[in-house]
Amino acid sequence: MTVAQLAEGISKGKRRHLAKAITLIESSREEDQQKAAELLSALPKRNDTLRLGISGVPGVGKSTFIEAFGNLLIEQGHRVAVLAVDPSSPTTGGSILGDKTRMELLSGKEEAFIRPSPTAGTLGGVAKKTRESIQLCEAAGYDIVLVETVGVGQSEFEVASMVDCFMVLMLPGAGDSLQGIKRGILEITDVMVINKADGDQKKLAEMAKSEYKNAFHMLAPKYPGMEVAILTISALQKEGIAEVWEAVNQFKEHLTSNNLFDKNRNKQDLNWFKRLVEDEVLHRIWNQASTQQMVSDLKDDMLSGKISATEAARRLMDEIG
Amino acid sequence: MTVAQLAEGISKGKRRHLAKAITLIESSREEDQQKAAELLSALPKRNDTLRLGISGVPGVGKSTFIEAFGNLLIEQGHRVAVLAVDPSSPTTGGSILGDKTRMELLSGKEEAFIRPSPTAGTLGGVAKKTRESIQLCEAAGYDIVLVETVGVGQSEFEVASMVDCFMVLMLPGAGDSLQGIKRGILEITDVMVINKADGDQKKLAEMAKSEYKNAFHMLAPKYPGMEVAILTISALQKEGIAEVWEAVNQFKEHLTSNNLFDKNRNKQDLNWFKRLVEDEVLHRIWNQASTQQMVSDLKDDMLSGKISATEAARRLMDEIG
Repeated sequence: MTVAQLAEGISKGKRRHLAKAITLIESSREEDQQKAAELLSALPKRNDTLRLGISGVPGVGKSTFIEAFGNLLIEQGHRVAVLAVDPSSPTTGGSILGDKTRMELLSGKEEAFIRPSPTAGTLGGVAKKTRESIQLCEAAGYDIVLVETVGVGQSEFEVASMVDCFMVLMLPGAGDSLQGIKRGILEITDVMVINKADGDQKKLAEMAKSEYKNAFHMLAPKYPGMEVAILTISALQKEGIAEVWEAVNQFKEHLTSNNLFDKNRNKQDLNWFKRLVEDEVLHRIWNQASTQQMVSDLKDDMLSGKISATEAARRLMDEIG
Repeated sequence: MTVAQLAEGISKGKRRHLAKAITLIESSREEDQQKAAELLSALPKRNDTLRLGISGVPGVGKSTFIEAFGNLLIEQGHRVAVLAVDPSSPTTGGSILGDKTRMELLSGKEEAFIRPSPTAGTLGGVAKKTRESIQLCEAAGYDIVLVETVGVGQSEFEVASMVDCFMVLMLPGAGDSLQGIKRGILEITDVMVINKADGDQKKLAEMAKSEYKNAFHMLAPKYPGMEVAILTISALQKEGIAEVWEAVNQFKEHLTSNNLFDKNRNKQDLNWFKRLVEDEVLHRIWNQASTQQMVSDLKDDMLSGKISATEAARRLMDEIG
């Protein structure tokens, strides 16, 4: 299939073309990369969509939530794509995210497109593919893109930097549950959802809600004048799902009415461009064969106290030229 | 004075030579920079010292605390240097940090060396000078170096990355006082000191202590098995100063007995080397005249949706070669 054919198919919302295009993006072949870049440039950029990150530790019920949430969105007339960033998949050999068998109802619908996490590559590589896949899904007419991730390493921060709204799913449980919260995670959270608030756990969920509320109050707000919504739900019993959607909409409304929605996306694009360039440049610096030995010697001299870090840096820069 | 003369004077603990050497480090003249680099390489690296960062918002009583704390250290036989990182000094035209008139007793002592913040330069530049000045002070026989900073911008994070122990001074006051705590500040804190716990404020200070304690419990500990000590003191009335020193020593003991003291310093050195190189490389990339126009055009094309961030990065890398 040519790039033009792919672009046309995607513009018409053809699922097969979209899937093929994402495969192109996920390919590491230089030729495919070239085609993928052309395709992305040929497709329109849409700002009338919503990109929603959904994060949470394994077992929190992400798939169950996305199944219920996605179906609600479709009932309301939306078209929903589900993508995933899973840094654990390269090591475990397979991603559990975006698993269609776990989203039975959703995956059967014409208005939903579910794509599991790319199964190989570094987090940066996976993130790159997901970023570009978002654009493809939007071009194919999916106006809501859910990007799922697990609470591993830096993955939430990657996802937060590519979505309009970042939602964190939590388990009920107060006090101790707050210990060991990942550093910085509260600071990037736009909407917090405490799942499994059913049966015996209802009370625990309410306690957790109150503790998280206090925790948020200790932080400078991400957006002035906007409190982070904290909701207790039961994805399994489909309770509270509509309220989550309402909270997301209120959040979006706050962004839009403060001219932050487009501004955020532009900032994300520029940051991403900058990061791509800087990552590549720094990768070259630290991996060029010609300076590897020198860097290693400089480090030894520095740690033994022979030269200062400043002097070591000066010598390396002289060599790089 | 030659580099050799400076090095000899510093090794003998001569204050005049130390002051001259720091002036050399603070100079932006290429010739001085060259001499400073030689000097640093000529001086020994000491691991038997303690580098202590002291941070806090203006008005928290840093100078009063350092005056009392420094004198206590000297009474115990230490030699104390006070340096400062103040990112606000370039704009306000003068630093209030390390102000000798505010540390009257301390500044009169032979065993103390106080150097105000460099008065010009970017935060990165000021931090570089301070890092190198630490080494000079240590070589001159000051076994405790206090690095003072205000709670502005990234300055605490800079200071935390160059000291063995990072202390934060806080004002009394509970509840609301926690709001607006700077992002990430708790996560880099090793010892917390609530100052002005005297008179009416004693009770408030105790409440703040209990709230901060809860806040720390919500975070993964910086060092496993080590709780952050929180002390209430009155620097003005010299109450609790010895307890602060005890807490710092306990912290140091924890690091030492876990082989983390030297490990941290080595890590700091390597990180600093890496950062110096990367800052310089990236500065060159974004500031070379030959690509400025191209970068600007690429950004426009990206924001208008003509090309993707990936494509923009690819084109720039092609140009850089």
